[in-house]
This record gives sequence, structure tokens and C-alpha cells, in this order.
Amino acid sequence: MSDDHEYEPPRREEFSHDPIDHAEVRGGMTVGELAAEYGNAGIGAAKVHEAVDIYAEMLDPDVTCFLSLAGAMVPAGMRRVVSDLVRDGYVDALVTTGANLTHDAIEAIGGKHHHGRVGPNEARHGTPRSDSSDSSDGSHEREGMTPREFDEALRDEEVDRIYNVYLPQEHFALFESHLRSEVFPPLEGDGAVSIARLTRELGRANAEVNEREGVAEDPGIAAAAYECDVPVYCPAVQDSVLGLQAWMYSQTSAFTLDALQDMTPLTDLAFEAETAGCLLVGGGVPKNFTLQTMLVTPGAYDYAVQITMDPDATGGLSGATLDEARSWGKLEKDARNATVVGDATILLPLLVAAARERVE
Amino acid sequence: MSDDHEYEPPRREEFSHDPIDHAEVRGGMTVGELAAEYGNAGIGAAKVHEAVDIYAEMLDPDVTCFLSLAGAMVPAGMRRVVSDLVRDGYVDALVTTGANLTHDAIEAIGGKHHHGRVGPNEARHGTPRSDSSDSSDGSHEREGMTPREFDEALRDEEVDRIYNVYLPQEHFALFESHLRSEVFPPLEGDGAVSIARLTRELGRANAEVNEREGVAEDPGIAAAAYECDVPVYCPAVQDSVLGLQAWMYSQTSAFTLDALQDMTPLTDLAFEAETAGCLLVGGGVPKNFTLQTMLVTPGAYDYAVQITMDPDATGGLSGATLDEARSWGKLEKDARNATVVGDATILLPLLVAAARERVE
Amino acid sequence: MSDDHEYEPPRREEFSHDPIDHAEVRGGMTVGELAAEYGNAGIGAAKVHEAVDIYAEMLDPDVTCFLSLAGAMVPAGMRRVVSDLVRDGYVDALVTTGANLTHDAIEAIGGKHHHGRVGPNEARHGTPRSDSSDSSDGSHEREGMTPREFDEALRDEEVDRIYNVYLPQEHFALFESHLRSEVFPPLEGDGAVSIARLTRELGRANAEVNEREGVAEDPGIAAAAYECDVPVYCPAVQDSVLGLQAWMYSQTSAFTLDALQDMTPLTDLAFEAETAGCLLVGGGVPKNFTLQTMLVTPGAYDYAVQITMDPDATGGLSGATLDEARSWGKLEKDARNATVVGDATILLPLLVAAARERVE
Amino acid sequence: MSDDHEYEPPRREEFSHDPIDHAEVRGGMTVGELAAEYGNAGIGAAKVHEAVDIYAEMLDPDVTCFLSLAGAMVPAGMRRVVSDLVRDGYVDALVTTGANLTHDAIEAIGGKHHHGRVGPNEARHGTPRSDSSDSSDGSHEREGMTPREFDEALRDEEVDRIYNVYLPQEHFALFESHLRSEVFPPLEGDGAVSIARLTRELGRANAEVNEREGVAEDPGIAAAAYECDVPVYCPAVQDSVLGLQAWMYSQTSAFTLDALQDMTPLTDLAFEAETAGCLLVGGGVPKNFTLQTMLVTPGAYDYAVQITMDPDATGGLSGATLDEARSWGKLEKDARNATVVGDATILLPLLVAAARERVE
Repeated sequence: MSDDHEYEPPRREEFSHDPIDHAEVRGGMTVGELAAEYGNAGIGAAKVHEAVDIYAEMLDPDVTCFLSLAGAMVPAGMRRVVSDLVRDGYVDALVTTGANLTHDAIEAIGGKHHHGRVGPNEARHGTPRSDSSDSSDGSHEREGMTPREFDEALRDEEVDRIYNVYLPQEHFALFESHLRSEVFPPLEGDGAVSIARLTRELGRANAEVNEREGVAEDPGIAAAAYECDVPVYCPAVQDSVLGLQAWMYSQTSAFTLDALQDMTPLTDLAFEAETAGCLLVGGGVPKNFTLQTMLVTPGAYDYAVQITMDPDATGGLSGATLDEARSWGKLEKDARNATVVGDATILLPLLVAAARERVE
Repeated sequence: MSDDHEYEPPRREEFSHDPIDHAEVRGGMTVGELAAEYGNAGIGAAKVHEAVDIYAEMLDPDVTCFLSLAGAMVPAGMRRVVSDLVRDGYVDALVTTGANLTHDAIEAIGGKHHHGRVGPNEARHGTPRSDSSDSSDGSHEREGMTPREFDEALRDEEVDRIYNVYLPQEHFALFESHLRSEVFPPLEGDGAVSIARLTRELGRANAEVNEREGVAEDPGIAAAAYECDVPVYCPAVQDSVLGLQAWMYSQTSAFTLDALQDMTPLTDLAFEAETAGCLLVGGGVPKNFTLQTMLVTPGAYDYAVQITMDPDATGGLSGATLDEARSWGKLEKDARNATVVGDATILLPLLVAAARERVE
Repeated sequence: MSDDHEYEPPRREEFSHDPIDHAEVRGGMTVGELAAEYGNAGIGAAKVHEAVDIYAEMLDPDVTCFLSLAGAMVPAGMRRVVSDLVRDGYVDALVTTGANLTHDAIEAIGGKHHHGRVGPNEARHGTPRSDSSDSSDGSHEREGMTPREFDEALRDEEVDRIYNVYLPQEHFALFESHLRSEVFPPLEGDGAVSIARLTRELGRANAEVNEREGVAEDPGIAAAAYECDVPVYCPAVQDSVLGLQAWMYSQTSAFTLDALQDMTPLTDLAFEAETAGCLLVGGGVPKNFTLQTMLVTPGAYDYAVQITMDPDATGGLSGATLDEARSWGKLEKDARNATVVGDATILLPLLVAAARERVE
Repeated sequence: MSDDHEYEPPRREEFSHDPIDHAEVRGGMTVGELAAEYGNAGIGAAKVHEAVDIYAEMLDPDVTCFLSLAGAMVPAGMRRVVSDLVRDGYVDALVTTGANLTHDAIEAIGGKHHHGRVGPNEARHGTPRSDSSDSSDGSHEREGMTPREFDEALRDEEVDRIYNVYLPQEHFALFESHLRSEVFPPLEGDGAVSIARLTRELGRANAEVNEREGVAEDPGIAAAAYECDVPVYCPAVQDSVLGLQAWMYSQTSAFTLDALQDMTPLTDLAFEAETAGCLLVGGGVPKNFTLQTMLVTPGAYDYAVQITMDPDATGGLSGATLDEARSWGKLEKDARNATVVGDATILLPLLVAAARERVE
């Protein structure tokens, strides 16, 4: 340290106040109580506690709340958590992937994802491994297969695998029919339409099918967004089965999608927000698209909570710290922000349950 | 696939039963209810659900339960979660690090760890970043410091940092007195004593100080283990401040530690267990030492739950799958096992609260 | 295992052939020799060896080679590695992010990225930490700053940070001029144009500026692609400064981008490939967009090499195994594939140098 | 920022000097040239460049060099890289695991590790997947097996798996004979002996077997250390097959190991070092034991290079930053240090080859 730089040493109190009291858990405690106990702990637990605190503030009606949703969140069973947030007014704009919208629609028209295995050696969901010779559910045929044969069998059976989740491919054919009969036709003839208009038509159609036929317990994320007038942005829509279907439809009809239009209403929303917050679930395009809108508005996010397990050391945006975002002016200098490192399928329900317990 | 290998294709039901119902969360739900909702989801959430299921089975009194505890679990605020497990009879043997025993004893004699910052730019625990100019707790002096100056200041103030946790070094001096007056003397003159005998004396001394002076709310893990007659194994004890102190004491007294003796009672416990389970919190020496004891016994673990965030791709033991352990004969072929990838300070309290809700 | 399932146990030779000979290194060895030594090792080293082997096969002129490039590869200094691959005929189609194209163009018009620090406590690039009080390059002013002040200073100085790389913001203004004078005007008036047409105009303009003014040592990736007639696909172009600029230009001119058109030539290329291979650098949209094109063609990739450090346990596509891709039909059943877990800024140059040594 | 804190803003030059020139690679370049090119890049590549620079300085004869070696480095094929470093005088003390010493000795007496598969679906080392139906090496029998059957078959065949490396268990029996005939007997009758004395006897015996019978190309790490009089510390020796064997031998003979003795010579070495550096390969006990020795000496490390892929976010020591070590006084305030995030089987050979090219 150079001689000409003087500083007052930190007063000793700084290092001896605020003791760690140690988390205490008991059977029957609520999720909010668990989050409070995390506040008595350090490392990641302390970050969950802080994230709950910040997210609960973001749920205030005066905060404009952007939700960025990347990763296989719908196949992984997070659909209801998100659609409930939309329905309860906790989301002002949703930025997500074409994949999540594809899988959301598949369930809206009656399809189902299924608990599966990463490979044939995985124990069946909810079943002791030692019972796997029991043939009552047909699973013993797995025995004697390599994972490669297993994946080949999945292909022969027309079942796609997403980590430990299965989706029979027939649902893609039903999804195609849904799009071609209910979603795409109203979009024809207007030149290049915005992607948010496509996602809105998708939400409307998902909702209508359900009102008409009642096939799903929950009409889903896009339907909730449609009903609550929440825009759904999907910048990389072509990178999904929804996008592939849109492209195939565009080959034989007066229909295509405009890649740029949505930036106007999204920027307007950011511009008009008195106080803005974002919950970033995963990284990818949704994360950056949510953050970068602040590059063309005078303000920036006042609150930001991020759930990710991607490493920051690669320099990729998905795992980048929120402090780096501050250097670009995406977060206010005095924004409250927290990053929780972990699996979003575990942490998102925990965060939402704890924040809801706080504010409801 | 070679022609001479025939297999029955999987029956279609395998891929269309057991649908993902989507997790549903609400304010005020219990941790056990959250864990049940994880069972309606995929990816990591499904693994938490399975881990809770397996761990709840392991809490049966007929299962001999080994708890392996690596990482900075005591500084991070997990001390009470563990000591309560010991006191409630859920641990038959504990394998841990010298560091955890060191920090456990420091709190037993009245010391405290403190919420800190990874660097000076971190918001203070529980405090909005925008309030950091408030000088009431002395923290504004941090302003104007680099992290290097900050760490230098920590050194000047004699405060050690463990990620976002602080420990004033004076506690190490008090710990040294405790060891030299209460713990080491009874171990002198018997030749090389076992490490478990040292940890037992430590637990006794921690308990006695508390009974006498009542300095800590919880006398801690070693004390609980002493009172409940649960052995505490610490294979790499020399790799810790406890070990450094033992070495310095051994320089001037008839005292040293035997590296091998503990393997006899540990192996005996494994040998005699009708049903054995292990909860592996983190990796390192505790994980392997817990698993390898099955290499010299005829049986192997019937249950295993692992919490880790180390990658498996490096081939290191800390992140290795439990299937690899099966190839060595450390797990029974039909053992139930689950690995949850994530931060133990978040997942251990969640797992314990949910399993306790199930069995209590 | 059920009784009715019989299998021949593996012959002992399988486990006693192919010994690990141990890598041997010496000063002055070539990168190809190092890669050969990796073949004598296990864990990740063995995967690098296999990836080099597969990638060298992919460089055969008969293999149609798709290169997917995600992450901050241009800011991180990978620009020349990629542009040389394009120029030497090793890339048939490039799929990348708007960010990489933005930063590529900034350098094409004379801008520079700079070695920086993750925070003020980082040692300066190439400089011993102990010399940091030397004021000759102005760096001693960093002393006395928190990272937050440092990032605020970066903002005040109009410098953006990407992990340990800096970019003065003035380059974005020069980039805007370049786009508005050289790139966007020829695209006006044709309705919604394809994104690949935009990237082609960008490459042409980058090349022309350089031919005219010679500002950059390397006109870059887009310029090389333009000159070699290699298409550059950028599905999420709006998620970048290039996209923000295109949107702002579209507000006042007859110009917009068609999100779907590019899928036709990309699919045609995949359809016509006798043998197809992909090198996937990072994950994100480029990875999936490269893989999913095989969902609408009868074939699939015969070769695939992936470099990623994202975990697979979250179920996200970025870290997903290539075996999972096989279950979707994106890879041929008998495709050769290898995933190397690590930092692409380290592994891509190593892989390319070793494969070039093999084939050139 | 408080009003009373004034700072000079960074001069603009800081952000516009030291441009990233972009790595350039070509077939036939040396590893040292590749490392130099990394210096023209950012993110992890820049860190490799810095690590090479620091490690090359550490190879100066005046620097006392501690090498910490965790993880499955010997099974993974790193044995020769390490033994050559020892033989060439680049190591003054080695701190490692019992597992690495076990596997080193197994090769010294003629055993071999073998390239294997993580599961039956993995392609064979060096063999295209499409050739796997070729039965000439017995591998086609793998077809028709699940990974669980595969691991069961490994057990039936008495072959242990370490990620993608196999070791036939018979080598453990030969290792036991070696220990009981050559290594343990000279250690009997002296009370508790130090672990370093055990590792020295092991190195001597490994060297003698080779001199006598010439069974291995390289007598290995322990033998090289014995011949060069380099101490080998192994704090958690009981956590390994070597430790299990020592324990079993101690049951029937006048032999045991002292857990504390080694701390005296290790501390003396640190105490006497004018300049000290450490190369930390992986984390675990070896990393901390190497670092903590500076807690009881007045000095600290002047150089430190760390290779790890464990996350820092869990607060565990294995992934902890070297800055945290500075707060404990394990590193000098002005020490040069670099952490490279990645797989040590890839990075260690690269680092050593590049540093050797620099200094030889």
C-alpha cells in the first residue's frame, strides 16, 4: 500500500457484531421459518435468506417485476409455480425460451411429461432399487439394455428425454395440430408479426382449449399471461420446436415473425417503471435480454435476484455475477441484489414459498 | 447392436405412467410439504424428494447411521442441526474434519463466528446496500478500501475469513487454553492415543465448561456426541488448528496420536450393523473414510444420501457418483441411494427438516 | 438381476488391455505431442485426446462442419482462432451470438478490448502484484477503491467489463456509425430480411473498411465468413448490442429482421450433407440451434465435439450430454462424440492447434 | 460513497493500454508458444498464462517448492509428470493422499491401470463407437448390459473403477504382499513411527523392486522422492488402501503410525525457506495441510498456483480462493498467485510442459 494512502482501520465491532446463531430445524416448520433459520447461517444459506428478503420486497405492487425463465423449467415441473405467480399479479413481463412455451402448450392441450431415468441404471422414481425386478409396470424389460440401447429404445418408442424427464413424441404432433388450427391462422396476412403476438395467441388458444375441453388441471403459463395481460417475450423463439413449427408454417403461408418489434414495448415498460426488479431463473438469452433492456433506458434495476449453477469463471453471461451487470449500468449502483448458486428446480419453489409466506 | 442380442422393447406404459404433476407452493406450507411437491417435479427437485425418502428410512432405529461431515459446516451455521441429530439418536458414528471440531469447540467455550463479507463490496448481512453509508455500526470505514486492503485490515484486526464468515483470532488463543488445561492433560503418558479418544475428551471438556459456566446456548457437536456415547472419527486431524495445537503440545509432553487405532471400532460398527446407511455431507476425507470401511467388512451400505456440489468430471472422490462406490463394493448392489447436487448449507437443513417431519 | 436374463461375463482381457502409460511432458514439445500424451492418461485428459481425434476427422473436406460459438469468445481473444478456421475452409456454417458479432465488428473497425481485472484486488495482467505501487501506468490510483467504486469508476470512465476484459464504451458509438453508414442501408426496403443477410452485410462492411483503411490486423470472423461464403446464423440477434442497434434503426426506417427465414438454408445444408459434424463451443442458443436442425432432416450428426463447463445436473441444455442429444435424434446412433469439460478459452486453442498438427 | 472520501479517478490509460491481441494457433506450435498465445487472450486462458509465468519463477533453485497433489492423479496417468518433477529437482516437499501412494506403488511393482469406461455406453478408448460390434477384443460382450450389471460384472471380475479408469483388484493383493514383505517390517518395534518414514520406506522398497526385477518403466513418485531425498507427507494416510493395510498389519505386530510427528520437519522446511512457493493440484487435505504450515511460521508463501474445478460458492476449502488464504496469513500480502479453473489431468501437463520450456 502506498504511503500516501491513509485509512482508518475498521472498528473492531464490525467483526464482532452480528453473530452466526446457527440454523435450527424441526419437523413441521414452515418454509418461511426455514428461510429465517438460513439467516442464522452463512455461505449459501445466508444468500437464500437475502434472496427471499429481496424477492419479498419485489412482490410489492409498486415494483415492476420482470421474470426471466431459462432452462427446462416446464418439463422439470415448475409450470404451476410460474403460472401461479402470473395469476397472482407478481409478474409484469415474462422473458423465456421457446422450449418452455412448447412444453407449456403441450400440457395445456392434455399432454404430460413423465418421471424418467437418466439411464437404465437409475432407480425408478419413488421406488426402491431392490424392487426393480418386479414386472408389474413393465419396467423389468429395461434390464439387459445398455443406455445406448435404452436411448435407441426411447427413439423406437418415440419418447424424448430431458435429463430425468420423458416426453412421448406424439405430443409434438398434437402440438403441431394445435398451432396450425388455433394459433397460427389469426397471425397470417399481417406481414411479419411480433413474437409477443405469437405468444399471446398461443396463450389465448391454450386457455380456450381448456375452457372448451377441460383437458388440463392448469391451462398454464402462456394462458395465465394471456388472461392477466402479461406480455411474454421469447427472443430466440426459432431455437425450439415452437420455432421449427412456425418456420414450417411460414413456408406455405403469408406468415412470419419480426425479430425486433418486441423491443419497443419491453423498453417502454422498463422506461416507465418507477422501481424495477428482476428474478433471473437460469441464464441464457432470457437473462441477458431482461438485463440489456436497461442499456437503452435511463434507469436500471433496483432489485435483482439470480438463481444459477453455471460457473462464473468461464466468462459466460449465464454465470456472470450481478456486480458485472452493474458495471454495464444494468443494475442501479445501489440496487439490492443476491445470487443463489444452485439448482432452480429446488431453489425456485423454496424462494417463492418463503417470499409468499412473508407478504401474504 | 449385434444380431444375436434380442431384447423385448420397453412396454409403452413405462413412458406414459408416473406423470409430472408440477410442484405447487403456497405461503405457510411446511418443509415436508415442499419436499412432497418436489416429488411432482424433475431434475434436482426429484432428487431432493428421493433423498428425503431415503434419509427418513435411515432414521429408523434399526439402521446404523454414519454421518460424514466435510466442509466449513460449523462456521457456516450448521452446528445445531448436527448436534440435534446426535442428541436425538439419529447418528451412530460421526466422521468429520479437525476444522469442524475446532470451530465447534470455539463456540462451546463462548466464542462466536460472525456474518461477514466475501469482500468490501458485499452488502452487509441483512442490510440494504443503499444503507451502507450509515456509520452507526462502524461499517462505513470499509469504504475506500480494496479487498486486499480489507483482507490486510482483517489480518491487522486479527480476524480470519471463511468465505462470508469471520472469526476473530483471539478465539484460537482461548481454544488453545481450553485444550491445554482441559483436553490434553488426561491423554498424557499413555503412549500414542487414538484420535477418537481425543475427540471424546474434547466433547467431555466442552460439555463440562458449559455445565460449569453456561457460556454457550448449545455445548455443540462433540459435547452431544460425548453425552450420547457416539464416536467421532477425524482421520486427518493434523490438518486443522486442533491438529496444530496437538502437535505443539506433543513437543513438550508425553503425548501423541495414533493414526490407525480408530479403524478397529469403526470397522466393528460396520461389521455388526444389520442395516447400514450413510449421510455424506460434502466430500473429502470424511466421505471416503466412511465409505472405505466397507472394503474390510463383508457387507456394504444399504442406504446412502450424498450432498455435494463438486463436479464428477475431474475424477475426484468428492464429486464421484455413488454408483462408482458400488463398483468398489462400498454400497450394496441393491442399496437405495441419492445424490443431491447443491450447497450443503441450504440442503442439509431442508433435508433434515423434511425427514424429521416424516418420522416424528 | 432376474434369473431369466443370461449374459456372458466380460472376458478378462477387456479389463487388462489398453494400459494407461502415463503422460510424459518435456520442454519444447508440440501441442500435438501433448495431445498424444493425453491419450496415455485418463479422466479429462483422455477426453481431450479423443476430441482431437474426432475433430481431426471432422476437418476432412468431405465432412460438412458446423461451428457453434457461444460465450464471450471474441472479447476473450478467440477471434483469430475462429477466423483462421473459416479462412482455411474448416467451417461450413457458423452459429453464434449477437455479442460475438458485435465485438468482432468493433475490432474490425479498429477498436480493441483490453486486459482488465475482475476487481481492483486482481493483479494486473503480466505484472507481479508486488509492483502494483509503481505508478508508471496510472494503475496505482486503483488503490483506495472498493470494487463497487471501481465499477462505478469504470462507468464514469465509460468502460464496460466482461469478467477480466474491458471495452471502452466509445467503441459502441463507432460501431453504431459503422452499422448506420455501411451495414443497415443496403438492407432497407426489402421487408423483413433474414438475419444471415444482416450478418453477411456486416462481414462485407467489416472487410471493406479494412481493405480501405487497414485498421485491424485481422478483419475478423464475419469478414472471413463473407469472403469464404460461409453463412453466419445468429438466432437471438436481438439479444445483443447489434440487435439493439438494429431495433433502433428499424424505428425510423423500412427495415426489420425475419426471425424464421434462416432455417431454410441451414436445414438444406444439413439435408445435403453426406457426413455432418459439429464443434460446439459453449452452450446456449447456438448449441441447440445447431443440434435441432437435425430434427427436421432425415440424417443426424456423425461427429460431435463439445466444450462446456456448465453442469449437467441442472437439466439445462448448455451442460447436457451428447448422449441426451442422441435420444432426440440429433446425433446418429453410431456418431463419434466427445465432451470436454473446461474453459473454452483454454481448450479451443489447444484442440485446434492439435487437430491442425494432425491434418496439415 | 461518503463525502469525506475523495479519490482520483483512474486515468484513462489504465483501460486502453494492454490490448487483447487474440490468440493465434498453428499446427506444430510448441506448448510454450501456446501458453504465450494464451497471454493474448482473456478469461481462463489469461490465467493459464499467468500460472505458467509464476510457476516458471517457482522452478528457480532458490525457491523452496511445495507440491500438493490431491485427486486420482496416479490412476489418471499423471504419475510420470510428477516423478519427473521430483527427479529434476523441482519439488522440495510433496504432500499427497494415501490413494496416490497406493496406486503409485501398484505400478512400481508391475501393476497397470487401464483405460475404461464410465459405463457400458461409453465408446472404447481410441475406438470409434461404430466399431464396437467388433468382437476381436472381447468388448462385444458388454452389449446387453445395464451399467448396474456392468458394475456388478466389474465386481464379479474383481475390477475397481475410478471414473474412466480400471484397476484389477488382484493388484491390491500384490500390493499387500509388497507392503508386508518389503515395507512394514523395518518399521516394527520403534513405537509409533512418522508417516513420512512409512512413505520413505515405501519409496525405497518400490525402487529396490525395480532395480532387482525391472518390472516398471518408471519406479514412480515415491521411489523418485526416496532417491532425491524429498519428503512425502500424507496426513490422511489411513483414508486409503495403504492405510487399511497399515492398520491390518498393526493388529498383529508392534507397529503403528504417529499422526503428529511430520509437522516438525514440514514446519522446519517452511521456516527455513527464504522464498517459498506452492503448486496446489486439487484441493482436499493436501491443499490445506500445505497452506496451514505457514500458520506456525513467521513467513508465508511468496508464490502460489492452484488448479481446481471445485466451486468456491460452497465455502469449502478445496475451491476457496487464494485471496482467502491471504486473510489467514498463509500467503504473503504481496505474493504472486494464480488460480486456474479446470481439470488437473489436462492443465497439469500443460502447465509443466510450458514452464519447463521457459526455464530449461
